[in-house]
Amino acid sequence: MIYVSRKEHFNAAHKLYNPNWSREKNIEIFGPCANENWHGHNYDLIVTVSGDPDPETGFVVDLKKLSVLIKKEVLEELDHQNLNLDVPFMAGKMASTEVLAQEIWNILEPKISSITSHGSLFCIKLYETPRNYVEYYGPGV
Amino acid sequence: MIYVSRKEHFNAAHKLYNPNWSREKNIEIFGPCANENWHGHNYDLIVTVSGDPDPETGFVVDLKKLSVLIKKEVLEELDHQNLNLDVPFMAGKMASTEVLAQEIWNILEPKISSITSHGSLFCIKLYETPRNYVEYYGPGV
Amino acid sequence: MIYVSRKEHFNAAHKLYNPNWSREKNIEIFGPCANENWHGHNYDLIVTVSGDPDPETGFVVDLKKLSVLIKKEVLEELDHQNLNLDVPFMAGKMASTEVLAQEIWNILEPKISSITSHGSLFCIKLYETPRNYVEYYGPGV
Amino acid sequence: MIYVSRKEHFNAAHKLYNPNWSREKNIEIFGPCANENWHGHNYDLIVTVSGDPDPETGFVVDLKKLSVLIKKEVLEELDHQNLNLDVPFMAGKMASTEVLAQEIWNILEPKISSITSHGSLFCIKLYETPRNYVEYYGPGV
Amino acid sequence: MIYVSRKEHFNAAHKLYNPNWSREKNIEIFGPCANENWHGHNYDLIVTVSGDPDPETGFVVDLKKLSVLIKKEVLEELDHQNLNLDVPFMAGKMASTEVLAQEIWNILEPKISSITSHGSLFCIKLYETPRNYVEYYGPGV
Amino acid sequence: MIYVSRKEHFNAAHKLYNPNWSREKNIEIFGPCANENWHGHNYDLIVTVSGDPDPETGFVVDLKKLSVLIKKEVLEELDHQNLNLDVPFMAGKMASTEVLAQEIWNILEPKISSITSHGSLFCIKLYETPRNYVEYYGPGV
Repeated sequence: MIYVSRKEHFNAAHKLYNPNWSREKNIEIFGPCANENWHGHNYDLIVTVSGDPDPETGFVVDLKKLSVLIKKEVLEELDHQNLNLDVPFMAGKMASTEVLAQEIWNILEPKISSITSHGSLFCIKLYETPRNYVEYYGPGV
Repeated sequence: MIYVSRKEHFNAAHKLYNPNWSREKNIEIFGPCANENWHGHNYDLIVTVSGDPDPETGFVVDLKKLSVLIKKEVLEELDHQNLNLDVPFMAGKMASTEVLAQEIWNILEPKISSITSHGSLFCIKLYETPRNYVEYYGPGV
Repeated sequence: MIYVSRKEHFNAAHKLYNPNWSREKNIEIFGPCANENWHGHNYDLIVTVSGDPDPETGFVVDLKKLSVLIKKEVLEELDHQNLNLDVPFMAGKMASTEVLAQEIWNILEPKISSITSHGSLFCIKLYETPRNYVEYYGPGV
Repeated sequence: MIYVSRKEHFNAAHKLYNPNWSREKNIEIFGPCANENWHGHNYDLIVTVSGDPDPETGFVVDLKKLSVLIKKEVLEELDHQNLNLDVPFMAGKMASTEVLAQEIWNILEPKISSITSHGSLFCIKLYETPRNYVEYYGPGV
Repeated sequence: MIYVSRKEHFNAAHKLYNPNWSREKNIEIFGPCANENWHGHNYDLIVTVSGDPDPETGFVVDLKKLSVLIKKEVLEELDHQNLNLDVPFMAGKMASTEVLAQEIWNILEPKISSITSHGSLFCIKLYETPRNYVEYYGPGV
Repeated sequence: MIYVSRKEHFNAAHKLYNPNWSREKNIEIFGPCANENWHGHNYDLIVTVSGDPDPETGFVVDLKKLSVLIKKEVLEELDHQNLNLDVPFMAGKMASTEVLAQEIWNILEPKISSITSHGSLFCIKLYETPRNYVEYYGPGV
C-alpha cells in the first residue's frame, strides 16, 4: 500500500455562527470568528489516495487527474466563495474546518474510482491557516 | 544601516469592487474577486525598519515592541474583519493589496519613533496569498 | 473522528549530556550537541486532538482555547528557557526531542478535558529543526 | 513508541515512460512527463524510524547517524542523477515517486539496525514537488 | 511606486556543460552538475512589476493577467523540458540559473505593457532549489 | 548585474545582556531574552553575491564554493555554539541579530574574491526566527 497526496489551494469567506443562538452567545463562543461581516482564509487542501501502484504506470493514481478532479468537484464550489452563503453542500451546516473537511470527503470519495482502479480515498487534510488544520479519514475511522 | 523585519499575520474578508462601475463591469474586470458575497485571505505582513543599531542594546528596534505596535495599530483594525465594511481607514478605497499596503505604511510610519530613536519605517511587504504579494517603500520612492 | 491540530512555537537552549558519563564519552556520543556552553533551537510544537465535532459549534475543540492551554501549560515553562537548567519537568532527564515530546504529552493529556468534552489528546509533534522532528501518540501506542 | 524523522534533499532527472508501449501511448498516458529529453525535480525525502528511546541517550536513533546513512545509501545513488539511466536499483522499473519510495525503503530497512538497537524503519515520505508526495510504510501495511 | 509580485513554478532537466571544454574539465568545474545524463529541479519563479496603482482598480497589474502571461510566454517553453535541448531561447547558452533569469527577463520585459499601462518589469527572481536563487533587475542595473 | 544567493543554517545559544547594566535593567530592557541560563535559535543565513556572470561558466559565483566558504569561515565558528561565550569575533559585543549579521559581513567580504573574480559580497540576511530577521549591505549603505 502506498499513500499518494496532492495539495491544492482555495480562498473563501466565512463566519462561525450558530443560527439557533443569540448574537451575544455567538460572540461569546466564537469571538471574532462570529463577525457578521465575515472574515476569510487561504485554505490548503491535501487529498490522499491509498492503494497499490499499477505495474504499467507505477501510479496509484495519476496526480494530474486527481488535481483536475479536485478542481472540478471541490474548488469550483469553494474558491472565492462565501462558505455560508454560496456553497450548496455547506447550506445549514457550521462552516468550521472540521465540517468542511467531512463534506469534501463526501464529495470526493465516490469519485476516486472514476480516475483510478488502483486506489481509494484515504484522507482529507485541510489547513485553515498555516497553524490550524484538520484531518479526516472517513466515517467509522 | 541595518534593515530589521518582523512578520505578523491576520485574516480578513474583502471583495474587489469599484462602486462607480456596473456589476457586469466589476465581474468582467475582477472576475471571482468581485463576488458580492465576499471571499477572504490569510495575510502575512512584514514590516521593515532601517537604522543603525543602538550600541547599548545592539538593536535598531526591539522587535517585541515592533510586534506590539503592529498588533495595536494595524492587526486590531484588520484581523477577522471585512476590509470593505469594517475598517475605517479603508472606507471608500479599493480593497486591493496595493492600497492596503500603502494605508498600513501611512499608519505605522509616524509611530515608529515612539518605539525607537535609531530607526525609521523602510518597507511594508504584504502577502495576500503565498503566491501574490506587494512591497511599498513610502511616497516618492 | 476528526483530528484537529494547532501549531505553536518556542525557543530554548539545551545540551545533550548524560551526567553518568565522562565529558569525553558525552562528546564522543553527542558531538557538538554536548557543548557545555549550550546551543539552542526554535522549536515548532504541533498538538493534535481527536474526536467527533460538537454539532452546535462544528468544533472538536476550539483552537483558540487549545492555543491558550498550550501557552499556559507548556510554553510558559519552555520559551526562552534552558531545558536542562530552568524547566522543572525536565529535571534529571535527557533533553532530547523524544523525551521533551513525551513530557509535553504528560502535561497536556489530562488538561484537554478542561477545554472540550468532544476530544482527547492524540499526538504531540515536535520539530527541533525544520529537518529533525518526533511524534508521540501516548504510552502503549 | 516514538516516531523520529529526518528530512534530506536530492535532485534528479527522470521521465515516465513504459518501454512496452508506443511513444504515442506514453505521451497519451504521461503527458509532458514522458518528454524523451527528460525533466527533473528537487526531491525532499523524510525517513521515519520508530522505537522506544534509549534511556542513556534519550534517542530512538541519533539523527546525525541517520543522516549519514541516508546520504551514503540513498543520496549518493540518486543526487544529480538520471533515475532512468544512472541508478542501478531503478533499472527496468517505472521512475514514479511511488516506486522510488518503495525502493528507498528496501535499501534502508535492513540498514537501520546498524545505527540503532532501539528503532526500526517506519515510513518513507518522498516529495516530488511541494504539492505531490507519497508515503510508504513497508510491505503488508 | 508599488512592487507587485507573482510566484509561479516549473520543473526541468538540465546540465552545466561548456562545449568548448573537455569532459574532464567540465567535471572538474561543474562536478555532478555536469552529469551527461542530466539532472533536474523544481524551479520557483517570482516576477515583480513596479508602478503606481490604477485608481480605478487599485492594481499596478492584475496578477491573474500576469500569471497567464508568465504561463504562456515562459512556462510553456520551460515546464517539463530539458533546458539544454528543448528550449529555443537557451540554445547555445549555459543553462545556469543566472543566464536563465536574464533570458526570462528578455522575454517578459517587452510584454508587460500588453497587460498593464501602470507598471513595468522590475525583477526576475528564480529559485533553482530552496537554498540557491538569483535575482535580475535588467541590463545596466 | 545578477544577485546570487545561498542559504545556510546553524543553531546557537545566546542571551541579550549588557554587562554595563544591572541585572534588573537587563531584564527590564530585554525581557526573557536576558535569561542568564541562555536560550537559543535555529538561524537561517542567506549570503548574496552580486556581479556579472562569467561567460564560460554562466556563474557569478559557484554556489558550491560559496557554501563551502560559508561553512568554513562562519558556520564552524557559530554552529552549536554559545554566541556570548564561544565565538571569538562576538566577544565583548551584544549578541543581537543586527550585530551578528555585521560581523558575518566583516568575515566574508574579504574572502569572496578567493572564490570568484566576477562578484563581490552584496548582502547578509540573517533569520533569528521565521518571523524576525535582519539584512545588512555593508558599511556606508
